[in-house]
Amino acid sequence: MSGNTFGNLFKVVTYGESHGIGLGGVIDGCPAGIELNEGIIQLELDRRKPGSGIAGTARKEADKVKILSGVFEGRTTGTSIGFHIENTDQRSRDYSKIMNVYRPGHADLTYDAKYGVRDYRGGGRSSGRETVSRVAAGAVAQELLRLEGITCNAYTVRIGGIDADIKDPENAYERLFFSPDEDVLEKWEKRIKEVRSDGDTLGGVVEVCIKGVPAGLGEPVFDKLDARLAYALMSVGAVKGVEIGSGCSSADALGSENNDFISEKGFLSNNAGGILGGISSGQDIVVRAYVKPIPSISKEQQTVDSEGKSTEIKIGGRHDICAIPRIVPVLKAMAMLTVADYLLLQRRMK
Amino acid sequence: MSGNTFGNLFKVVTYGESHGIGLGGVIDGCPAGIELNEGIIQLELDRRKPGSGIAGTARKEADKVKILSGVFEGRTTGTSIGFHIENTDQRSRDYSKIMNVYRPGHADLTYDAKYGVRDYRGGGRSSGRETVSRVAAGAVAQELLRLEGITCNAYTVRIGGIDADIKDPENAYERLFFSPDEDVLEKWEKRIKEVRSDGDTLGGVVEVCIKGVPAGLGEPVFDKLDARLAYALMSVGAVKGVEIGSGCSSADALGSENNDFISEKGFLSNNAGGILGGISSGQDIVVRAYVKPIPSISKEQQTVDSEGKSTEIKIGGRHDICAIPRIVPVLKAMAMLTVADYLLLQRRMK
Amino acid sequence: MSGNTFGNLFKVVTYGESHGIGLGGVIDGCPAGIELNEGIIQLELDRRKPGSGIAGTARKEADKVKILSGVFEGRTTGTSIGFHIENTDQRSRDYSKIMNVYRPGHADLTYDAKYGVRDYRGGGRSSGRETVSRVAAGAVAQELLRLEGITCNAYTVRIGGIDADIKDPENAYERLFFSPDEDVLEKWEKRIKEVRSDGDTLGGVVEVCIKGVPAGLGEPVFDKLDARLAYALMSVGAVKGVEIGSGCSSADALGSENNDFISEKGFLSNNAGGILGGISSGQDIVVRAYVKPIPSISKEQQTVDSEGKSTEIKIGGRHDICAIPRIVPVLKAMAMLTVADYLLLQRRMK
Amino acid sequence: MSGNTFGNLFKVVTYGESHGIGLGGVIDGCPAGIELNEGIIQLELDRRKPGSGIAGTARKEADKVKILSGVFEGRTTGTSIGFHIENTDQRSRDYSKIMNVYRPGHADLTYDAKYGVRDYRGGGRSSGRETVSRVAAGAVAQELLRLEGITCNAYTVRIGGIDADIKDPENAYERLFFSPDEDVLEKWEKRIKEVRSDGDTLGGVVEVCIKGVPAGLGEPVFDKLDARLAYALMSVGAVKGVEIGSGCSSADALGSENNDFISEKGFLSNNAGGILGGISSGQDIVVRAYVKPIPSISKEQQTVDSEGKSTEIKIGGRHDICAIPRIVPVLKAMAMLTVADYLLLQRRMK
Repeated sequence: MSGNTFGNLFKVVTYGESHGIGLGGVIDGCPAGIELNEGIIQLELDRRKPGSGIAGTARKEADKVKILSGVFEGRTTGTSIGFHIENTDQRSRDYSKIMNVYRPGHADLTYDAKYGVRDYRGGGRSSGRETVSRVAAGAVAQELLRLEGITCNAYTVRIGGIDADIKDPENAYERLFFSPDEDVLEKWEKRIKEVRSDGDTLGGVVEVCIKGVPAGLGEPVFDKLDARLAYALMSVGAVKGVEIGSGCSSADALGSENNDFISEKGFLSNNAGGILGGISSGQDIVVRAYVKPIPSISKEQQTVDSEGKSTEIKIGGRHDICAIPRIVPVLKAMAMLTVADYLLLQRRMK
Repeated sequence: MSGNTFGNLFKVVTYGESHGIGLGGVIDGCPAGIELNEGIIQLELDRRKPGSGIAGTARKEADKVKILSGVFEGRTTGTSIGFHIENTDQRSRDYSKIMNVYRPGHADLTYDAKYGVRDYRGGGRSSGRETVSRVAAGAVAQELLRLEGITCNAYTVRIGGIDADIKDPENAYERLFFSPDEDVLEKWEKRIKEVRSDGDTLGGVVEVCIKGVPAGLGEPVFDKLDARLAYALMSVGAVKGVEIGSGCSSADALGSENNDFISEKGFLSNNAGGILGGISSGQDIVVRAYVKPIPSISKEQQTVDSEGKSTEIKIGGRHDICAIPRIVPVLKAMAMLTVADYLLLQRRMK
Repeated sequence: MSGNTFGNLFKVVTYGESHGIGLGGVIDGCPAGIELNEGIIQLELDRRKPGSGIAGTARKEADKVKILSGVFEGRTTGTSIGFHIENTDQRSRDYSKIMNVYRPGHADLTYDAKYGVRDYRGGGRSSGRETVSRVAAGAVAQELLRLEGITCNAYTVRIGGIDADIKDPENAYERLFFSPDEDVLEKWEKRIKEVRSDGDTLGGVVEVCIKGVPAGLGEPVFDKLDARLAYALMSVGAVKGVEIGSGCSSADALGSENNDFISEKGFLSNNAGGILGGISSGQDIVVRAYVKPIPSISKEQQTVDSEGKSTEIKIGGRHDICAIPRIVPVLKAMAMLTVADYLLLQRRMK
Repeated sequence: MSGNTFGNLFKVVTYGESHGIGLGGVIDGCPAGIELNEGIIQLELDRRKPGSGIAGTARKEADKVKILSGVFEGRTTGTSIGFHIENTDQRSRDYSKIMNVYRPGHADLTYDAKYGVRDYRGGGRSSGRETVSRVAAGAVAQELLRLEGITCNAYTVRIGGIDADIKDPENAYERLFFSPDEDVLEKWEKRIKEVRSDGDTLGGVVEVCIKGVPAGLGEPVFDKLDARLAYALMSVGAVKGVEIGSGCSSADALGSENNDFISEKGFLSNNAGGILGGISSGQDIVVRAYVKPIPSISKEQQTVDSEGKSTEIKIGGRHDICAIPRIVPVLKAMAMLTVADYLLLQRRMK
C-alpha cells in the first residue's frame, strides 16, 4: 500500500511527473521467455498519445519508450524490466497563477494536505500524464496474456449522456473515440464541440471486455477478481464508478431475472459479467468505468488559495475536453495487469 | 493476494465455512492501548445476525464472539488479536440434491473449476456466512477510528427499485432494513412480501458515509482511497457496482456542474464524495454499493451438474429474500477496515 | 511487515500468549487437495512439547491442535485453514515480582518501549510458547513438500560448546536432544546437569537440512532463498546467528577452496549449502542456527524496574535450561514454511 | 516476494544488468519534505565505485546517478523517486568462452535452471553490479534516518583470516578497505598480494553498527528487527553468514555471561547487539556479515557446460580479489533501508 506499486506477482511500480524529466516504471515478476521489444510497448503508447483526437489536448509528446533492463536477445529474462519515457514537451510556463490556488475538482488541496509540498507544474504526479506508465506496463502484461489466449478490448459506450450501440467492439481501436459504433460519432463530435465552445467539459462511460480467461481465476474472499478489477479501474483518475456485468442495474432486478441459467452448451446469459463468487467462470469478463468530466474548465470557478482566501480561477492551457478517448487504453491496461497477476497466482495452484 | 487477508497495516485474515466448526480471524497490526472487549464486538455482530428482519433467513445463530488473544486488562497489547465465533446451528441436512449441481448465480461451478474440490454444505467458504468475521474485525477498527473522531454509518437507500429518502441516516441502525427513512418501510415490506410469495428475490443499494476523516488520507497513484474502498465493498459477495460521491451519474454531468467549488468556509458541494486525486479532502466520504438479488430462489432454474449434464433446481432452505439489511453492517465494516489501514499509514508520514 | 504474518503465497498468521486462552493461526494460501487431519499436525507438535526432555520445563501442556476450517472430507479445500491450541496449564501465579521488573535478556523492556503496555504473565506474546503455532503451520507445509519429494530434517550439532558428530541425522528425531550422534549424549547430559546445579543456562547450534528441493527456487535479487531462510530462522527467539553451507568459515577460505567444482555426475562438494545466487542448485540445502542460552537464570542479576530504579532479580519457575531440543522442530518448521512459499511461487514461472 | 523489491513502507525496486544500458530503481514510500539531490546520492555511490582500492576490479564506471522524479525544489514530494545510473564501460567482449559454461560458485547454473534463459554478459542480473542501486536507495534512506538522529557505519573487521582491531570505526570510511584500524592494513595488503599472485581470492567479515535507533523498533513475532537485518544482509551476494551482537559465539556462553545486566545508567554490556525480543533496546545495533571469497579465480576449475558435459574453466577479466571493500557500503545501505522501513512503521503506532 505504498501507492505507486500495483499487483502482487506481476508487479509494477511507476514514477514520474507531468513536467519532470520523464516517466516510467519497473515490472517485477514478469516470467522469462516472453518476446518483448520497444515496438510492442510503443504500439499501446501510441493509442494513448495526446493530440490524436478531437477531444484531445494540444500537448505534443513523442512518448517514445526505452526498455532499460530485463530483456535479452528479444525475450524477457525473468528479471525486473525497467522502462522510461522522456518528457519532451514540458515547455517552460508561468505557473504563478495556479501554484498557490486550489483548482476545483483537482488534487491540489489534498496533495498539500497530505504532503505539505506539491509539484504544481501541470499537476505533478497527480496529472493524468502518469498513466503513460500504466499503458507501457499493460502492454507487457498483454504479451503474457496472449500466450494464454486471453485478449482484452476496451471501447467507449457513452459520452456526454449519448450512448453508443455496441455493434462492432472488435474494431473500436480503429475508430475515433475508440467507439464500437460508427453511427454515434457524429452526435458525439457535435456534443463535444458545443461543450468546448461553452468552456465546459464532458464525461462518459468505458467498457472493458476480456475474452479467453479460463474458469478458476480469482481468490475468495477478499481478493475476488471483480474486487481487484474495481480497484484497478477506480485507481485511474476521473473514474467515479465501476460495475461488473449487469452491474448497478442488477440491484433493481429479480433473482429469477438476474441469475444466469446454464445449459449443456454453457451459460444462457452473462449478467454476472463472467465472475461468480469472485472467480472467473470462463465467460467474457465485462466491466464498466464511469468517468467524470475533466475538471479543468475555462469557465470562472470559485475557490480558495493555499492560505484559505477566496479567489476565482479560469483554467486555460492544453487540456482535454473529455478524458475519453485517452483513458480507454489506460483502463484496458489496468484490466490486463489485474488478470496477469491472477494468472501467475493461479498457475501455482495446479 | 492470498485471498483471505485484507489490509496492509491494519490487517485481518479470516477463516471458516458456513457449516464448519466456526468462523473467525486474526487482526495483525492493531495498535496497543485501545479499549476492547467481547461486548464491543458483539454489538456489531448482533446487527448482522440472521433471523432479525423480515427479509431474513430462519437460521438461528448465537454468533457469540470469543477473543483469543491480544487483549490484556481490557486493552489491546499491540500483538495479534485472534477471535472465534462458533457455529451452533449447522444442522445436519441432506446435501445430496445440491452437492453435484451448480446453483445458478452461486460460486459452485467456479469453486470446482478453481480448487477441484468444494465444501458443498451451505456453500462452504463462499457462503455469506463468512462476513461474520468481517463484521467482528470491523468492530475493532471502529474503536481505532473512534479515537480519531471518525465515525462510519451505513444505510439502505433502495430495495427492489424503491428509493428511500435519506432524511435521517443517523438513526438508521434503529430502524428495520437500516432505513434512513421511516416512510419507505411500508413500501419495502409490501414489495418483499410479493416477491417472497413468488419464490423470487430482490436486490438494493446501500450507502456508506464516513465522517471525520481528516484531509490527507490516501496513496496515489494506485492506492487511491476511493480505489481501495471500491475494492473493499466489491469484495463483499452480491455487490456488482460501486460508486463514489455523485458516482456513475457524474459521467453525464458537465465539468461546471460536477466540480465542487470552494469558499472560505469550505466546499460548496460534495460531488467528489470526499476524495480528490485519491486523497481525502476532509469532507464526508460517501460511497454506494449496488447489491444483486440473492441467487437462491425457489423457482425452478435450468442448470447443469458437475458432469455437465442438464438438470433443474429449486432451492429451498433457510435463505434470505434480500441481502439487505444483513449486508449493511458488512459494508460498514469493510469501509472502516479500509480507513483504519490508511489512518495507520498516514501517521507515518507526519 | 505487520509482525505476526509469515510468507507470501503460503502465508501464516499466528496469535496467542503464553498464559492466555490459547494459541493458533490461520494459513492462507495452502493449495486444495492435500491430505490433512489433526493427527498429522499433532505429530509435529508432540515433538516440540514441553516436559519431554532432560533440559525441559516442568510445564505440562497437552498441546492438542484443533483444525477450525479449510479441510473437508480429509483434504484441504484451498480456503484458509484455521487452527487452535488451547492453553491448559496456565496456572494462576503471583506475577507481582516480575510485572514491573525488566528481566535481563528478555523482551520486557523493549515491549514496554514499543507498546507502552505488556502482558507480563509468562512473557505474554514474547514467550517461546508462541512457537507452537509455527510448528503447527510447518506441519501443513510439510505435507505440501512431501508431495514434491522434499523432506526436511533438523538436529542438534552443539550444546554448551560440545560438538556432536553428524553420523546419523536421519534418526535424530528418535534420540534425546534430537541428536545425530548417540555418543555425545552422555557429555551433553553431564554438562547440562552441571549448569543446572549452578542455576545457569546453556546455548547450542542446530542444523537444518532440506533434501529434494529442485534447482530453480529463489528470487533474486533481494528475495534470495538463503536471505529468506536467514530471516525465517533468525525470527525464532534466541537465535543470534545464521549461516548457509560452509557459512561463517567460508570468510576465511580461499576461492579455490570454497568453490564447489562440478563434474558430469554433479557437484563435488557443497560449501554453498545448496544455494547459488540466491537460487537452489538441486543440492541439499544446509543451514545452521546459533542459539543463545536461555536468559531465565536462577542466579541473581542486576537490573531495573519499569521506573528505571536499580533492583536485583532471580528467576525461578518452570524454565528450560537450554532452548535445545525444543527449538529444533521450530527451526525445521520455519525452513519448511520458507521452502513451501518458494515452491508455490516457482510453479507460476513454468 | 517478487525478488527485486525490498521493504514494505520505505520500499525500493531495482533493475538493471551488468552489461545492459544501465541500472536504477524506484523508491516508493519516502516521506515528503526531505532534502535530496544527486550530490547526496553520489557521495555514497563514489564509495562503492569500482577501481578505487587495491583489491578492486579494473572496470571504470562513472556511476553518475540521475534522479528522474519525486524531488521538487530540492525536497522530496512524497511521490515515487526514480533514479538511473548509466553503464558506460560495458565494453564489447567475447563471451563465447563462458556463455555455455557454468562458472563454479556463480549463479550461471541456477539462473538457467530457474529461467531457462540467461544474460551471460558479465553475469547479467546476478552480477554484483546490481548493488549500485542498493547503495543509491540506501543514500536516500540515510537522509530520512539523519532527521531522526540515526547514523549507520560499516567497516571491515577481517580479511583472509586476519582480524582488525576495532579501534577507530568512525574514520573507517577514510581508510583503505574501510578499515577501523590503520595498523592492520599492511598485513591485509600483503595477504591480498600473495593470493592475487596465486590466481586465488579471499573473503572477510564486515561489521555494521547503527547508532541512535530509539527503543521500540521491530515487529514481533516474525518481523523481528534482527530477522529483517539478517534477511537484508544475506540478500547481498557472497554473504554466507550473519550474526547479531555476540552472535554465533553466544551459543557457547552461559546465560549468566550472555545476559546484559542493566543499571540505572543503562545496559552494562551489549551481547544482544541492541535487540531484545526482536525490538530495538536503544543500544547500538551491531550486526556482522561473513563474506565468502570471490568465486572468479584464474586457477583452472572443473565444471560442466550447459549440456552437462565436463570441461575446465579459468576466469580472467576485470574481477575483484575480494568483495571487500566494495561490499561495505552495500551492507551499510541494506541496514539503513531496513531501519528506515521500521522507522516509518513505528511512527504509526504512536
